[in-house]
Amino acid sequence: MTSALATPDVIDPPSKATEEPVSATVLDRYRAVRSWTDTLCEPLVTEDYVVQSMPDASPAKWHLAHTTWFFETLLLTPHLAGYRSPDPQFNYLFNSYYNSIGKQYSRPERGVISRPTVAEVEDYRRHVDEHMAELLSGDLPDDLLTVVEVGLNHEQQHQELLLTDLKHMFSKNPLYPVYRPPLPVTAEPVPALAWHEYSAELRRIGHDGRDGFAYDNEGPRHRVFVEAFRIASRLATCGEYLEFMNDGGYQRPELWLSDGWNTVQAEGWRAPFYWQAAEDGTWQQITLGGLRQVQPEEPVCHVSLYEADAYARWAGARLPTEAEWEVAADDVLGTTAAIGDNAPDANLAEDGAYHPRPLSSAARHGQFLGDVWEWTASAYSPYPGYAPPPGALGEYNAKFMSSQVILRGGSCATPRSHIRTTYRNFFPPATRWQFSGIRLAQDGLAQDERDG
Amino acid sequence: MTSALATPDVIDPPSKATEEPVSATVLDRYRAVRSWTDTLCEPLVTEDYVVQSMPDASPAKWHLAHTTWFFETLLLTPHLAGYRSPDPQFNYLFNSYYNSIGKQYSRPERGVISRPTVAEVEDYRRHVDEHMAELLSGDLPDDLLTVVEVGLNHEQQHQELLLTDLKHMFSKNPLYPVYRPPLPVTAEPVPALAWHEYSAELRRIGHDGRDGFAYDNEGPRHRVFVEAFRIASRLATCGEYLEFMNDGGYQRPELWLSDGWNTVQAEGWRAPFYWQAAEDGTWQQITLGGLRQVQPEEPVCHVSLYEADAYARWAGARLPTEAEWEVAADDVLGTTAAIGDNAPDANLAEDGAYHPRPLSSAARHGQFLGDVWEWTASAYSPYPGYAPPPGALGEYNAKFMSSQVILRGGSCATPRSHIRTTYRNFFPPATRWQFSGIRLAQDGLAQDERDG
Amino acid sequence: MTSALATPDVIDPPSKATEEPVSATVLDRYRAVRSWTDTLCEPLVTEDYVVQSMPDASPAKWHLAHTTWFFETLLLTPHLAGYRSPDPQFNYLFNSYYNSIGKQYSRPERGVISRPTVAEVEDYRRHVDEHMAELLSGDLPDDLLTVVEVGLNHEQQHQELLLTDLKHMFSKNPLYPVYRPPLPVTAEPVPALAWHEYSAELRRIGHDGRDGFAYDNEGPRHRVFVEAFRIASRLATCGEYLEFMNDGGYQRPELWLSDGWNTVQAEGWRAPFYWQAAEDGTWQQITLGGLRQVQPEEPVCHVSLYEADAYARWAGARLPTEAEWEVAADDVLGTTAAIGDNAPDANLAEDGAYHPRPLSSAARHGQFLGDVWEWTASAYSPYPGYAPPPGALGEYNAKFMSSQVILRGGSCATPRSHIRTTYRNFFPPATRWQFSGIRLAQDGLAQDERDG
Amino acid sequence: MTSALATPDVIDPPSKATEEPVSATVLDRYRAVRSWTDTLCEPLVTEDYVVQSMPDASPAKWHLAHTTWFFETLLLTPHLAGYRSPDPQFNYLFNSYYNSIGKQYSRPERGVISRPTVAEVEDYRRHVDEHMAELLSGDLPDDLLTVVEVGLNHEQQHQELLLTDLKHMFSKNPLYPVYRPPLPVTAEPVPALAWHEYSAELRRIGHDGRDGFAYDNEGPRHRVFVEAFRIASRLATCGEYLEFMNDGGYQRPELWLSDGWNTVQAEGWRAPFYWQAAEDGTWQQITLGGLRQVQPEEPVCHVSLYEADAYARWAGARLPTEAEWEVAADDVLGTTAAIGDNAPDANLAEDGAYHPRPLSSAARHGQFLGDVWEWTASAYSPYPGYAPPPGALGEYNAKFMSSQVILRGGSCATPRSHIRTTYRNFFPPATRWQFSGIRLAQDGLAQDERDG
Repeated sequence: MTSALATPDVIDPPSKATEEPVSATVLDRYRAVRSWTDTLCEPLVTEDYVVQSMPDASPAKWHLAHTTWFFETLLLTPHLAGYRSPDPQFNYLFNSYYNSIGKQYSRPERGVISRPTVAEVEDYRRHVDEHMAELLSGDLPDDLLTVVEVGLNHEQQHQELLLTDLKHMFSKNPLYPVYRPPLPVTAEPVPALAWHEYSAELRRIGHDGRDGFAYDNEGPRHRVFVEAFRIASRLATCGEYLEFMNDGGYQRPELWLSDGWNTVQAEGWRAPFYWQAAEDGTWQQITLGGLRQVQPEEPVCHVSLYEADAYARWAGARLPTEAEWEVAADDVLGTTAAIGDNAPDANLAEDGAYHPRPLSSAARHGQFLGDVWEWTASAYSPYPGYAPPPGALGEYNAKFMSSQVILRGGSCATPRSHIRTTYRNFFPPATRWQFSGIRLAQDGLAQDERDG
Repeated sequence: MTSALATPDVIDPPSKATEEPVSATVLDRYRAVRSWTDTLCEPLVTEDYVVQSMPDASPAKWHLAHTTWFFETLLLTPHLAGYRSPDPQFNYLFNSYYNSIGKQYSRPERGVISRPTVAEVEDYRRHVDEHMAELLSGDLPDDLLTVVEVGLNHEQQHQELLLTDLKHMFSKNPLYPVYRPPLPVTAEPVPALAWHEYSAELRRIGHDGRDGFAYDNEGPRHRVFVEAFRIASRLATCGEYLEFMNDGGYQRPELWLSDGWNTVQAEGWRAPFYWQAAEDGTWQQITLGGLRQVQPEEPVCHVSLYEADAYARWAGARLPTEAEWEVAADDVLGTTAAIGDNAPDANLAEDGAYHPRPLSSAARHGQFLGDVWEWTASAYSPYPGYAPPPGALGEYNAKFMSSQVILRGGSCATPRSHIRTTYRNFFPPATRWQFSGIRLAQDGLAQDERDG
Repeated sequence: MTSALATPDVIDPPSKATEEPVSATVLDRYRAVRSWTDTLCEPLVTEDYVVQSMPDASPAKWHLAHTTWFFETLLLTPHLAGYRSPDPQFNYLFNSYYNSIGKQYSRPERGVISRPTVAEVEDYRRHVDEHMAELLSGDLPDDLLTVVEVGLNHEQQHQELLLTDLKHMFSKNPLYPVYRPPLPVTAEPVPALAWHEYSAELRRIGHDGRDGFAYDNEGPRHRVFVEAFRIASRLATCGEYLEFMNDGGYQRPELWLSDGWNTVQAEGWRAPFYWQAAEDGTWQQITLGGLRQVQPEEPVCHVSLYEADAYARWAGARLPTEAEWEVAADDVLGTTAAIGDNAPDANLAEDGAYHPRPLSSAARHGQFLGDVWEWTASAYSPYPGYAPPPGALGEYNAKFMSSQVILRGGSCATPRSHIRTTYRNFFPPATRWQFSGIRLAQDGLAQDERDG
Repeated sequence: MTSALATPDVIDPPSKATEEPVSATVLDRYRAVRSWTDTLCEPLVTEDYVVQSMPDASPAKWHLAHTTWFFETLLLTPHLAGYRSPDPQFNYLFNSYYNSIGKQYSRPERGVISRPTVAEVEDYRRHVDEHMAELLSGDLPDDLLTVVEVGLNHEQQHQELLLTDLKHMFSKNPLYPVYRPPLPVTAEPVPALAWHEYSAELRRIGHDGRDGFAYDNEGPRHRVFVEAFRIASRLATCGEYLEFMNDGGYQRPELWLSDGWNTVQAEGWRAPFYWQAAEDGTWQQITLGGLRQVQPEEPVCHVSLYEADAYARWAGARLPTEAEWEVAADDVLGTTAAIGDNAPDANLAEDGAYHPRPLSSAARHGQFLGDVWEWTASAYSPYPGYAPPPGALGEYNAKFMSSQVILRGGSCATPRSHIRTTYRNFFPPATRWQFSGIRLAQDGLAQDERDG
């Protein structure tokens, strides 16, 4: 099997004529991605960089250092002669989970580390950026270019986590700090929910390792038999979810998976994460743009797999499998290619406050990409024929293939060039601090039923 | 979709000519299954019935009462005029998890209940048995006969749990009580591991709802595309697992899923559950027949999914998916039918001490059925087109379809008539007190590779 | 310092002329105390002996074995030639907390041990009793007679724990098993609360090691300066405590110690332990005689130190120190001697259901002894000049002198011959499953204030 | 009873002739104390202010705001007409534990609050300082002057906590940040341990409410009978504690209180907090001056009550009661007065790195004051006749009088003017992050023994 990671044209598609060396293009992209991290940090004050508001989140400072450590550890230290890290302890402090590289500082205590300071972390970034420029000025073999590309995609993942973790931190603060003021909301009527119908067929899903970058876990492209199904033309809205709530959704065990119901009881859930009941009985939600009214036209967001599943059951539907989702997304979007381009790396939501767009205004891609991650019914498992890459990169995705659920589609916080239909995001089923929402599916009619 | 549960010939296969009314046959089977529970309890003293040795286990007394409550609640109370329970609190004490029926006594505190006594629980069983005989003497409609059959299969599941829970309880006791003395072990050389090879094909798996009883979650029978694979001709042995241990298996994070490695660290695992290092460096294991030497020829047992997965990785293999397992089991066994017959309900292991047979002596069915449950690589999810039955029985299987992993094959503690190749057992991945073992699989050669 | 434990006349007071050897008298007492344990167990069924309903409680079976192990380990094994224990593992299973003797089976898992059976534990008791008779038939030195006496007092402590632990176990059972039916309650008006007044003086408290048995921690008798105080003539009643509750006692943080308030919040306390709100708004309580109405005339019972302290603050009073309590008890009762005699060891409450008597019927000793343990304001600390005895008995009391609070007076579950005014019982401040109640105290008038 | 808090000459001793109004002097002291907080913060970077390294500690930023909130809430809001807080949420965020004032932000989540920023908190301090100057420019009644004095002592307590919490935070960081470089250590031989002997006598301890400020819990001054005792002339040293460790101190249960031994096992203690075994087998310790070698001549520090108690038992001694300690300290120091003066508020240790001085160099007061807090054998209880002040200040000390142990003497981190012999510090027995050490005591000879 040929790993997607080893594909040379990840960076430079053959269809593009160019005189520049590959690594020069890569350097441009390196600078663009790294610079976008700085852009995302502009609204922050020093204190915001330090806090870890729960074990699953990380301080902004840590995100900045960890993504830098990734380039240092996988590229500079082994491949740039004479490279030295500013501090040998960084390899311990900023290693997230790579056992093959060494021991890691306790994850739930990342917020206990006041030093290195933000300024020192920024120095660290510059230090690594300068040496990466040096490395990329040479003639880098394909396999190392692939590692660079993994590093950039890795940084993009952390760009999203930076936003979700900031949102979580701000939500714990009774002063409700605002990351960026929101754009004015111009809600129009939500289009009625329609169904895309698909017949039972042997399909192909997964990334073929040829056209653009993909993580190892997105391949190999392979055959899967998908029974007839239908899938909703749009996401579930806050308004619809409120109907579920008002119909006793959080009080009726028959709607829930057993683990879900236990979690509802233990955690006292009665609305999506970040929703708060106002004194007048309406619902408000904490956003990166501050506290604001829940809008019925917006996609419901920050729900767990359990809530998504219960909502679907209440609605007489179910969640799509990841194969169904990918078949439909490719069909609707007309392509398996990534939707983004490299610069500028603005967000699909085009809202500095990173909030999913109202369904009514969701443009071209909005149906399937770039507003909220969509929970699927599929556990995170390897595709047939999958083998993790050797070395530390083999720990990137493969070792998490248990007790996690696949999400698809990319959120308003996902960098545009990081979104594609084969992308397999995964989180445990109780996760709520990610921008996660709901698309319904149903079994399709069998051929004979339909013909009759 | 037609649910397997609604299938009339679950009880009375059409091929069998018979003059007795269906319910009379059912009564015979009812008595046989209920009586087997008594047989399993023969070695117990009163004190053994009371203890709950961990939250996942239940006291023997509770198993006896709960299986009785099942018949009372789903059949007698609604369908036998004038039926009265011995105590209205039993509906609270012995309801396991059926929210649609009512509140449940706290599961982790089942061992705190000294009353009703064992004798009173036996009276309860007799009381229900008598009224079940009355109910079954009438002309019962098919849907109720199906509920009876579910109740009997339910009792069989608890017969197995009775044994696993007793084993766990005895393992905590430094006196190492013996359930039944073991038969003499006559180990012969283990046959070399061979591979059954299968080409990539569109397959059918699952129960078709026609031939014998099956739980709702075993159907519908459906198409699945299975890539080429090979599967081991026999289970992994204790001897092979010892090689894994001696090769640092429990000390090498690169062999483990992330959750698995965390569990190994947190729990201090360094051998299968019930194994103990003897002072001379050899390994002993706690069995229902007492403490005895680990036999290299026996299938390794009482391992978690994490250990099974790590062992497979160490062995250059992987675990089979449930589809692969079922395709191979049907092929090897030549049938999808259950292997057991109804009476006497002796155990496949034919060992009163309920221990898996040495691989060398595993006869006809031993390759795939009746020694240890085999961990698969498949999360527990609904089959395409699956819908849970209405009412309380809908809670039986469906609500557990998250964060659990499929096991296949049946163990030495599974009643013989309760084993079939479509059976989907499921437990969380860290589970070790069940009789769970390992069968290896590998990707098969692609057609062109094989031809070349 | 002369330890109370080494005092020979613990057993045979010098004022008593007797021709029997000391150890013969001791044997009579040994048999009487051991036999009382059997009497207490008469209402139990086998299942009741097995359960441990919380980590602080122990199974009845364990109490029976542990008290037996005490005699075996401290007397028979070292001092009776040729003695053999029925099972060497008993020294591990039934050692409570004596590190100097060896390792101990995990305390919270005592309820996991179904074997030895109740019958085997009774055999163990008989085995030890026979050998104790043999040992006591000889001429035992004084120091060993003292150990026998410690062993008998130890068994008496466990007789009380047997009852408190049974009560706790039954309280978890929705069937509300009855230990013994209660005697009819004949409540009369509760006498008005009066105050015993004491001037500031240098006092003596503690046991002098001469007159009867006392534990090491009750001595040495020593001087303590006690400022002027007054102490209530009777216990606080359920009726009075209900006034506290109805006045928002459990909702007003200003009445509580900080730890107490945190516990009220965390545990959701809103009434004494074992109290339940009936549907008609009245309060019922679980007793060893079954569920019954809370009687206003009864002493309030099963309250923690936190509740006792909050109640006292609400009542404009405080709890007495242990010195105040002992000064007053000695004064009121006219003696420091124990109130009981050796046989028959019936209970002060004279109620087989072991429930404190209504205040109105509390006779001679009832004011200070034998209904409920009375929380004091004193932490459990060593008296000046205290030194623990050498060896295992040094672990009996001394090592618990931190984070515990003194209770005085003895409860309705305390054997009559085990009650004395110098007795220092101790439990952590959140403890509620013991028979613990409240007596109020206040600062007295200073001499000049009083004279004026 | 006259509360110490109501004493007017706390601020202006009668012996001092002065023309200034009392409140002007108070303003000077206010400024000096507030300014010392700024001095302590000089070595900090912004990031250091944000972190909460464990639930018992608080972020520096929180300390700065909370001490300011104290003046605002108890003085400005109720007593300065027209005063407005910068943000109404501050009353929620910076209330520590005063239920009578209102709800409090979750204590363990103080480190989750990035805003208000450090600069905003400094603005808050200036805002309150300006208004306090305005308030103090008027003619303030005595009871409010007392509240000011409580507020200043409160800020001094938090000055010490600021240092202990910073030390804890830095200790979690593998970079070992340095608060201030230490002064050179000039160790000389430690003087031999001698004993101060005291006969059994009726003594007086506690603050009389006349001479200088004291907290409510230090009074009333009262009589206590103290049996003959002796007390060590100096603290236990690191060298002596190493002997305890090398003699198996942490492995011998017979040396420990039961709770202590359980804690040793559960936490894996094997040395004082902040000690680390170097690779060469020597011991290093984390200090505010960085990682440095353990010096045998220094007082052992950062031990729990359990360790202090075990060490004392090992040494054939015990810990002193708080009465013994105060009797001896008053005797040795010749006064009950505070040792400090108001300005400059430098530390006794005269070491910017806040580390206890070597015993050899401990001057005049060092024997009893200003190096480490000394664990006593006394639980924290009210003195006879104690009554808490009314209102919020009643919550300051009184509600913590359970499950805490008294420490005496003041540490190297205690502001000089905050140290006095009557001072009753208190912490739970497992506490280790405070500067807590050990002074030994023993029972004295009884009069007759001594005469003989």
